[in-house]
Amino acid sequence: MSREAGAPETSLELARFLSASRYEDLPAALRHEAKRSLLNFFAVAFAGSREIAVETALGLLQEFAGPPQAAIVGRPERTDLATAAFLNCASANVYDFDDTHPRTVIHPTAPAAAPLLALSHRQRVSGPALLHAFVLGAETECRIGNAVSPGHYRRGWHITATCGVFGAAAASGKLLGLDAQGLLWALGNASAQSSGLVETLGFMAKSLGVGNAARNGLLSALLAERGFDGPARPLEGPRGFLQVMGEAADPSEITGALGERWELLDNTYKPYPCGVVLNSVIDGCLALQARGDCPPEAVESVTLHGHPLLRQRTDRPDVATGREAQVSAHHAVAVCLLFGAAGLAQFSDAAVRDPRVLALRRTVSIVDDAEIPVEGIRIELKRRDGTRETLVVEQARGSAGRPLADSELEDKLRRLAADGAPGCRPEPLIEAVWGLEDLADASELLRLAVPS
Amino acid sequence: MSREAGAPETSLELARFLSASRYEDLPAALRHEAKRSLLNFFAVAFAGSREIAVETALGLLQEFAGPPQAAIVGRPERTDLATAAFLNCASANVYDFDDTHPRTVIHPTAPAAAPLLALSHRQRVSGPALLHAFVLGAETECRIGNAVSPGHYRRGWHITATCGVFGAAAASGKLLGLDAQGLLWALGNASAQSSGLVETLGFMAKSLGVGNAARNGLLSALLAERGFDGPARPLEGPRGFLQVMGEAADPSEITGALGERWELLDNTYKPYPCGVVLNSVIDGCLALQARGDCPPEAVESVTLHGHPLLRQRTDRPDVATGREAQVSAHHAVAVCLLFGAAGLAQFSDAAVRDPRVLALRRTVSIVDDAEIPVEGIRIELKRRDGTRETLVVEQARGSAGRPLADSELEDKLRRLAADGAPGCRPEPLIEAVWGLEDLADASELLRLAVPS
Repeated sequence: MSREAGAPETSLELARFLSASRYEDLPAALRHEAKRSLLNFFAVAFAGSREIAVETALGLLQEFAGPPQAAIVGRPERTDLATAAFLNCASANVYDFDDTHPRTVIHPTAPAAAPLLALSHRQRVSGPALLHAFVLGAETECRIGNAVSPGHYRRGWHITATCGVFGAAAASGKLLGLDAQGLLWALGNASAQSSGLVETLGFMAKSLGVGNAARNGLLSALLAERGFDGPARPLEGPRGFLQVMGEAADPSEITGALGERWELLDNTYKPYPCGVVLNSVIDGCLALQARGDCPPEAVESVTLHGHPLLRQRTDRPDVATGREAQVSAHHAVAVCLLFGAAGLAQFSDAAVRDPRVLALRRTVSIVDDAEIPVEGIRIELKRRDGTRETLVVEQARGSAGRPLADSELEDKLRRLAADGAPGCRPEPLIEAVWGLEDLADASELLRLAVPS
Repeated sequence: MSREAGAPETSLELARFLSASRYEDLPAALRHEAKRSLLNFFAVAFAGSREIAVETALGLLQEFAGPPQAAIVGRPERTDLATAAFLNCASANVYDFDDTHPRTVIHPTAPAAAPLLALSHRQRVSGPALLHAFVLGAETECRIGNAVSPGHYRRGWHITATCGVFGAAAASGKLLGLDAQGLLWALGNASAQSSGLVETLGFMAKSLGVGNAARNGLLSALLAERGFDGPARPLEGPRGFLQVMGEAADPSEITGALGERWELLDNTYKPYPCGVVLNSVIDGCLALQARGDCPPEAVESVTLHGHPLLRQRTDRPDVATGREAQVSAHHAVAVCLLFGAAGLAQFSDAAVRDPRVLALRRTVSIVDDAEIPVEGIRIELKRRDGTRETLVVEQARGSAGRPLADSELEDKLRRLAADGAPGCRPEPLIEAVWGLEDLADASELLRLAVPS
């Protein structure tokens, strides 16, 4: 345990906090936000449960999987705990439709929640215990993310994966009741397994980094429970995570105001399965379509006046795949005006090839306006009959200033269950999530998340 | 597949080479060196097969493991292929007694060989096919290591793990007969899983990074076989491995003279289970002891005149654990003069506590002499009766200039099998490795490496 004089003991301080934290210490608003995060988790895990990367991974992993201990969200199969953690985390993230911690761009829930749901099939876990461990896992990954942001992501690290493994380890370790030493080892075991490159985004390979975060974090804690030791300073040590994978990292972000400031309170949820900068475009075009006075054939041109980031990220008049369509403003405008919807079906490969979509995409152009905030948009519509119209969206749905309502999260879950996981009944699951604080056996959640 | 004009296509070039490589193209000396590497692998895997980190990991992983498809070196249990790859790689590396590629300090054989041995229990694999895939796996990891050395390790990356996953993916992909596109995806899937920090060395956590290299590389190739895709430029892309995890990486190291220069020809093997800089010290002290004219009670002082690196790395008169003793010159001198041996037993926790060892450690001191090469040593012995003696070792056993003979590698295997894996019979295994080019079914190797 040698260390330089006066050096911070970041890892130990974090481990001590995690160990000492009591459920009663969590503010009510935080507990509520945790439930919202879990609702959103199940929604997006339903959506991803039959995505091709998830199907392919499941097909292979079942060849090596152990006893059918745990459920896979949205699917009839069961698998071993570690594989279930991998798959449930990967499927919740595969469409990038999951939650976002704005400061770090971490999608926090999948890595922290997936191992806990798996563990609830191994030992009796109460609803509050699961909620508590989840909050601490999300806190751990987001704080470590804060410490290395923005340099870490900018360099090319897929931060949901690289920091997620620590969240998974902390959450799992807390649920296992590890003491501070055990949690420190869990973080150390996680540090040996932190991986994930931005280069893999847009490819199935992305899901390996993300799924591993949950699986390997879970194993990190279970190994620590058995005395599998790690370094004393996995985060702040001279060859530890912050030094090696951070860029000018700030360890005080990890330990500052622990138990007072809670990162999960800043969590946000996406209304649409595409790049967040498109949210306001979609809001506006859906509003236009809903009025019924601009049928596609009447459209001459649609001009989007937006923050320069909109053009930089989404100026893609020609896209070839559903995945690419998720970052095309032209495609977003077209499907909204045509179908009055912006769900997974509208961002599929089939939608991209629809000739009506192709025709409408060509009417769209983007103009920079640095005065417009990144959450807003000004849409100028010109009809073939010469009439013009302007529609302004100040703040998109799902942004920090205009969060999705509880009922909207419920609807997201219902819609994605229907789309992605036939046979799953959303209502009892929604009820169980809201009632998590009174749930005696949290394994109920996963049991309600599979086809009946 | 977008890329900048004129940018190198490092990953694709490597994948094409791996795909096109034929067994017949391998020089005879290279095939022989590959067999030596495998002999050394089995030796050190026997040694590590009951080490505490391996025991602990096995105990946990069996809870989640699938069908008993593959053998674990030195042990009676069987486990699924992925878990077997993890354990066989981890146990071969756990004592740092495995091989060393001098330029990168990668221990190349464990990550590349462990998945191939596992795969030989899944499909019929000939000896030459296994040998060929192993050589290509080792080539891949060492070349990627060359491209990021020395900055990568210096920054704090455990290079055996971070580069090993690529070697495991390449080796597995070759054995599966993937084409260039499949091998490219295998490398891409590996890139999402490259991890391992130097901070974890000296702790059980180290074995997670190393074991994962084999397991995750294997899965990377098996997933690629099923069409699980990765980025077009996992190594050289703007957010790929070289840019994110390298420090001023040189991609030409990966593709230069492919098929002409072979990295495995530079592989070295340790005669003793400790830091390589101690090899000459041990050689000299064993020679002194063998002569029988300097019994421990006669020793007044032992002065080691060596390259400054010797003092920097091994000036540790007081050590508390066997692991620490592996980098203590004082301990090495003491056990050699006392026991005439420098094996695992002499670097155990028990040996460290032996009062005779403690007494003798105090007689040792180290003096810098920059004129002495790092592979050499001058030992000055002073007896209590006033007589003095000087012994010079020019090149330690196991260094590049004085490689272990084939028979010494065989002896290492025999010794470590006897020490670490009771019930395992070394002779048929040694014979099978030497006869690998004529072996019809390479699964014979693992079958011969378990207790009979």
